[in-house]
Amino acid sequence: MNPLVIDPIIKLALAEDIGTGDVTTNATVMPETMASAELVAKEDFLLSGVAVAQRTFSLLDSAIAFEPLVFDGQSVKRGNVIAWIKGPAIYLLQAERVALNFLQRMSGVATLTAKFVKEVQGTNAVIVDTRKTTPALRVLEKYSVRIGGGGNHRMALNDGVLIKENHIAAAGGITAAIKRAQQHAPHTLKVEIEVQNQDEVVEALNAGADILLLDNMSLEELRAAVELIGQRALTEASGGVSLETVRAIAETGVDMISVGALTHSYQAVDISMLFS
Amino acid sequence: MNPLVIDPIIKLALAEDIGTGDVTTNATVMPETMASAELVAKEDFLLSGVAVAQRTFSLLDSAIAFEPLVFDGQSVKRGNVIAWIKGPAIYLLQAERVALNFLQRMSGVATLTAKFVKEVQGTNAVIVDTRKTTPALRVLEKYSVRIGGGGNHRMALNDGVLIKENHIAAAGGITAAIKRAQQHAPHTLKVEIEVQNQDEVVEALNAGADILLLDNMSLEELRAAVELIGQRALTEASGGVSLETVRAIAETGVDMISVGALTHSYQAVDISMLFS
Amino acid sequence: MNPLVIDPIIKLALAEDIGTGDVTTNATVMPETMASAELVAKEDFLLSGVAVAQRTFSLLDSAIAFEPLVFDGQSVKRGNVIAWIKGPAIYLLQAERVALNFLQRMSGVATLTAKFVKEVQGTNAVIVDTRKTTPALRVLEKYSVRIGGGGNHRMALNDGVLIKENHIAAAGGITAAIKRAQQHAPHTLKVEIEVQNQDEVVEALNAGADILLLDNMSLEELRAAVELIGQRALTEASGGVSLETVRAIAETGVDMISVGALTHSYQAVDISMLFS
Amino acid sequence: MNPLVIDPIIKLALAEDIGTGDVTTNATVMPETMASAELVAKEDFLLSGVAVAQRTFSLLDSAIAFEPLVFDGQSVKRGNVIAWIKGPAIYLLQAERVALNFLQRMSGVATLTAKFVKEVQGTNAVIVDTRKTTPALRVLEKYSVRIGGGGNHRMALNDGVLIKENHIAAAGGITAAIKRAQQHAPHTLKVEIEVQNQDEVVEALNAGADILLLDNMSLEELRAAVELIGQRALTEASGGVSLETVRAIAETGVDMISVGALTHSYQAVDISMLFS
Amino acid sequence: MNPLVIDPIIKLALAEDIGTGDVTTNATVMPETMASAELVAKEDFLLSGVAVAQRTFSLLDSAIAFEPLVFDGQSVKRGNVIAWIKGPAIYLLQAERVALNFLQRMSGVATLTAKFVKEVQGTNAVIVDTRKTTPALRVLEKYSVRIGGGGNHRMALNDGVLIKENHIAAAGGITAAIKRAQQHAPHTLKVEIEVQNQDEVVEALNAGADILLLDNMSLEELRAAVELIGQRALTEASGGVSLETVRAIAETGVDMISVGALTHSYQAVDISMLFS
Amino acid sequence: MNPLVIDPIIKLALAEDIGTGDVTTNATVMPETMASAELVAKEDFLLSGVAVAQRTFSLLDSAIAFEPLVFDGQSVKRGNVIAWIKGPAIYLLQAERVALNFLQRMSGVATLTAKFVKEVQGTNAVIVDTRKTTPALRVLEKYSVRIGGGGNHRMALNDGVLIKENHIAAAGGITAAIKRAQQHAPHTLKVEIEVQNQDEVVEALNAGADILLLDNMSLEELRAAVELIGQRALTEASGGVSLETVRAIAETGVDMISVGALTHSYQAVDISMLFS
Repeated sequence: MNPLVIDPIIKLALAEDIGTGDVTTNATVMPETMASAELVAKEDFLLSGVAVAQRTFSLLDSAIAFEPLVFDGQSVKRGNVIAWIKGPAIYLLQAERVALNFLQRMSGVATLTAKFVKEVQGTNAVIVDTRKTTPALRVLEKYSVRIGGGGNHRMALNDGVLIKENHIAAAGGITAAIKRAQQHAPHTLKVEIEVQNQDEVVEALNAGADILLLDNMSLEELRAAVELIGQRALTEASGGVSLETVRAIAETGVDMISVGALTHSYQAVDISMLFS
Repeated sequence: MNPLVIDPIIKLALAEDIGTGDVTTNATVMPETMASAELVAKEDFLLSGVAVAQRTFSLLDSAIAFEPLVFDGQSVKRGNVIAWIKGPAIYLLQAERVALNFLQRMSGVATLTAKFVKEVQGTNAVIVDTRKTTPALRVLEKYSVRIGGGGNHRMALNDGVLIKENHIAAAGGITAAIKRAQQHAPHTLKVEIEVQNQDEVVEALNAGADILLLDNMSLEELRAAVELIGQRALTEASGGVSLETVRAIAETGVDMISVGALTHSYQAVDISMLFS
Repeated sequence: MNPLVIDPIIKLALAEDIGTGDVTTNATVMPETMASAELVAKEDFLLSGVAVAQRTFSLLDSAIAFEPLVFDGQSVKRGNVIAWIKGPAIYLLQAERVALNFLQRMSGVATLTAKFVKEVQGTNAVIVDTRKTTPALRVLEKYSVRIGGGGNHRMALNDGVLIKENHIAAAGGITAAIKRAQQHAPHTLKVEIEVQNQDEVVEALNAGADILLLDNMSLEELRAAVELIGQRALTEASGGVSLETVRAIAETGVDMISVGALTHSYQAVDISMLFS
Repeated sequence: MNPLVIDPIIKLALAEDIGTGDVTTNATVMPETMASAELVAKEDFLLSGVAVAQRTFSLLDSAIAFEPLVFDGQSVKRGNVIAWIKGPAIYLLQAERVALNFLQRMSGVATLTAKFVKEVQGTNAVIVDTRKTTPALRVLEKYSVRIGGGGNHRMALNDGVLIKENHIAAAGGITAAIKRAQQHAPHTLKVEIEVQNQDEVVEALNAGADILLLDNMSLEELRAAVELIGQRALTEASGGVSLETVRAIAETGVDMISVGALTHSYQAVDISMLFS
Repeated sequence: MNPLVIDPIIKLALAEDIGTGDVTTNATVMPETMASAELVAKEDFLLSGVAVAQRTFSLLDSAIAFEPLVFDGQSVKRGNVIAWIKGPAIYLLQAERVALNFLQRMSGVATLTAKFVKEVQGTNAVIVDTRKTTPALRVLEKYSVRIGGGGNHRMALNDGVLIKENHIAAAGGITAAIKRAQQHAPHTLKVEIEVQNQDEVVEALNAGADILLLDNMSLEELRAAVELIGQRALTEASGGVSLETVRAIAETGVDMISVGALTHSYQAVDISMLFS
Repeated sequence: MNPLVIDPIIKLALAEDIGTGDVTTNATVMPETMASAELVAKEDFLLSGVAVAQRTFSLLDSAIAFEPLVFDGQSVKRGNVIAWIKGPAIYLLQAERVALNFLQRMSGVATLTAKFVKEVQGTNAVIVDTRKTTPALRVLEKYSVRIGGGGNHRMALNDGVLIKENHIAAAGGITAAIKRAQQHAPHTLKVEIEVQNQDEVVEALNAGADILLLDNMSLEELRAAVELIGQRALTEASGGVSLETVRAIAETGVDMISVGALTHSYQAVDISMLFS
């Protein structure tokens, strides 16, 4: 991830946590005291965000040494040391919580994504994310979806065309909506459209849609749609996706399954910073 | 919540989601089209964040009318309408996802908090949050903890003194650390210190600590500590707190129980915006 | 254009021009003096940016009335009145230059684009822009390209895949590069790749590229490439495009012609604000 | 130019271009790949902005080495290498377009300015710029005017007094306006006033104006005004200035000629970054 | 003062004071409670900043009514009511301290300036400020100097040329320094130079300086310099200026006397907000 | 002080002072000229802010060497050298005024605080500050109060509970207000309440207030209140505090005396930067 992209959110988080200063540390720790610490996993998970954690420390004090022992995309076992950190105790103490807040959430996203990816192994389907991300953290959460083996849906409203029910109604039908998108949206973007049934699938294909979002369809409907579509467009299933249902959905032959839960219902993994 | 405090995070979230513009809506919806919509609950939960959702719409277009039918702190049943919204279709479509992203998460925090609060009903204990909040959203999550019936621990490193193990080590012991905090931190702040056993409890009390953080103690140890402390200081239990264990912890007589999960492991509740 | 997107650049421009205050106006004009003015075209052109001009005045003082008489996309003749403006003289005088700086440049882009579009009338080719835009003004310039009848290439590095020579070299060949893009970039994006000759065209098609950028090819090469490609991919010509050469390029049958000059070599049109 | 002044605009431009990340480069280039490149002139021009280009690379990645071979104010011939660049390929590719967008525009301003300056060689007249600059780029464009041999008019509304027609009307006449400016504007600023004819010239001189802006006067009128004024004030001609007319205007003896075209109608010069 | 100029500093001050929220008011006052209050003078002074105070309230809540009874530049007596304020109690309480912090300081500057101005009444001399202003408040303090009857020296390093000893040394002498400034600085600016003795006065005059800064000269030296200079340049005295010495300095005939104390040693006047 | 906390205010101050560039230095000093300088005390004072001054230079140019010879909290005599500075002359000249503006004010606060602290030597009383600080500089001024031997009251409205008259009225009495604060404010904060007489003291004690603000009481009333309160709460005196009255107030036995003058009526100390 580009520093220009992630630094602002890290600085915002540090400012939010430090406020006007760390009154406890300022009162009890001498500025010249040096300290060493380790980031230690307290459970098993898939790591994401180690560079963000590192950057959190270095943005607070560029003199802090941070040596990662594990990298994004690697599995971590309870008790593993993720990184060694060394520097002024006052800055280690002030960056600790923010670095962990990032690392625990990003690893949570990657770990949950990896579970979905594992469920669909052997099928065609790619697990992709949605825009149901945490405000301000989208770029970090979507990165973690990739680390977990998933793919990214659009990052913002400008880098993907996704025509939903309300757009269709406003444009006066599926064909009209697709034509307008082909004409007015940048040609670098595929045109994706939400369809509810076979008739809409046919109309969307004829109008030249690149991707069909098969929303809230039954397994049977999905299978029928996939067959009907063939190679003429990519297919994306969404709605009612959980770890329990995802395998069956994947086996219908869809190309992608979008899962809101990847970014709105993950749990932070447990990581501690231990001073040594 | 003060607009000066919440507007920046709402604007950041809108900018993140809209990017350089909504290519789908711009291509398919006329700027002059008006629309009406409802925010509808898709499950039961405790509402938090309706003013943030409202502000999200009005920051994008001050001409949008947003009428809440339910307010923060009220229970919402699946199918309930939370608010009516009316305005230019292009702005309803562009604010929808961001408003929901806030509302679903804030209600998630409030709902989880309320479960913990209900568990400890009839005891002395107040459920309080921690600094394990989502970067950039702390003020919204901590507000939602209050909505759920919990209390707030410090908002940042400057509005509470919490002396932990590493501070004690750096200061040269519990007594020294407390004395330094009393002398150097603002007198508006209570002095809280982490203690591990009876000896440390006694030392901290003698040094004049206002709050004792009883970290990772067994129920028995907690009970003994509470008895020993009496009214001389407030007590806060932390570590190993879950919906299963919280009742027993509360029954030890502690004044507060801090729960990281309130803000790091909640799930977004399910809310939709339906156009009418 | 979304106010959240354009307001920051307008405010930046006002701040840049006003500095710490308008010493001339403050010294010579009473704050309570009201004034009326007109924006008048001093040459013929295609209008773009009237809403940006309006927003410039209203961001400085929301009490200023600004009534546009002509709208973006309409032709304006020398002497036409573009808008009536009324409000405190001190704010009219302070917003004048900034509003004109935007309006003159945006109309310049639209006017130049319209010339290119007119040249290729009757052919298949769409005139599109590039990333050779003025720093900080991209969204305004690309909007003006659309107003002039052109289409937009990617807005930023995140909303389009364009594999160039250096990417190909780094990835180890055309096929490898396309495969990596298909796998790692969001599926909402088409994959475009730069090709230099027939062999590369064939390789790119076989690897599944969505768009072929035919860079710096002769007319003959373009024609051959277009024929070879058929409907299997979109084609974009670039390099050596001017008002003199664009027609012949379009007649080779390419789908798009990208023109850097649209945004890097336009001339500001002449517009004055006259007080009445 | 001071980094504190130029860094914000460079960062804004990088953020605008990179968006949420470079999907093409991230997909096709390994982070550890190193690359070398050259900035090469594709036409003859006067160089301006090499330090801005250098800063663009180093703000994205401080590890990039950038060695300029030519400096601002020097003439560059087609084919000349302007700078050598070496560093991580992913950052060279991401900074390339932004660095060129600055360098090509700044050199465009300097080159155009130099043409005007050459035209008036041997006369008294200094070519100066106006406030008709590109929003957000004023400081860079005005710097480039100096590089091209021109002089700067005021940078913003606070660092020069320029009393125009509307100010005169509001103040109740030329004398009143000048007196008010002398009294209320900082004494560090000269007082300049726009005059239309001989009577106004005389009134302005008597009131103590430091500079007379001779607006849209014929050559004859200019000559007469210059003679009448003598050494009592500086003179500035404006209106109808082009490369064709500027020599004759200069020969009327005016001290300065302000040229809007320097910053509103320059063309970007052609520069490429070639990987080696 | 332009809202675009003052709003950022007001918002910064509100954010600084409110932090993450007003815990006292939030706990004790209902959001719907309305309140009325008065700003009351607790001593005699010259008022400056009433519009800034008003803006502070309205930026926090645009629904607050603020009716000024006295305006900037008017004398206020102990007990006078400066403004009536009405609105939500929670916002009156949160804006109170910030509004007063501005108003008390700005009136302090105006009051001190007025004392200096009164001392030199009947002489030629204008009292002017320096760059020894409070960081972030310069525009407000310099405005208050004008309200107090003084004049403004340069607002920043870009809107005035002031050649000091070190510049002279670097440029290789007084004449060289002045020539370089005339050539390289914008022609809208006068050239001011610091001189220490008669020889330097003569050299500076011959080189064409517009203003001579007579630094730390005795009254006798000032008188001699003023006589020598005549009408050939403006004169500014600085150094050792106090309410005790200023009259004598003014009587030497200098045009301006710059006083650092106006902005670095004023005292906040006493104003209270009383709820009614 | 944490760089994340102070850097924004330093950058704001530099931007305010430099504007679009230092026209004098740019015209007269070569960029490559190196210079050395000293910060020299022109009067006796207590130093505060040397790290802020150092940071000011290094934020402008990280290559400047700044070696402090004295540190915050040490006494400085007229003529003492505070720091040696070495680097490019153009940056020394541009940072000089801003660095001094900070250092002179911060030392002014520390020096005034130390005078109050000295007055109360031998008593129990701690001198504390208020929220009557200079907008934007609070964190620097409150730091300087600590350097001068004082203590800090709350930094913002979120890190201390201080119930004043209007809160009491709104809450329906002293007891109700205290109960609400205990329930709704973070438990990390003590509850302070303003009381006017003995009855209020008793009510506040019974309700469990942690700190009583004894506002505008006579010495006799203060003594009585202190005796009545005993060890049951901390006591703070405020109102009518000056260097003349503070000793007598301290001798009443109060724990703290809050002094608005520390931050609203200090005088900048005199420091010069001398080039060598």
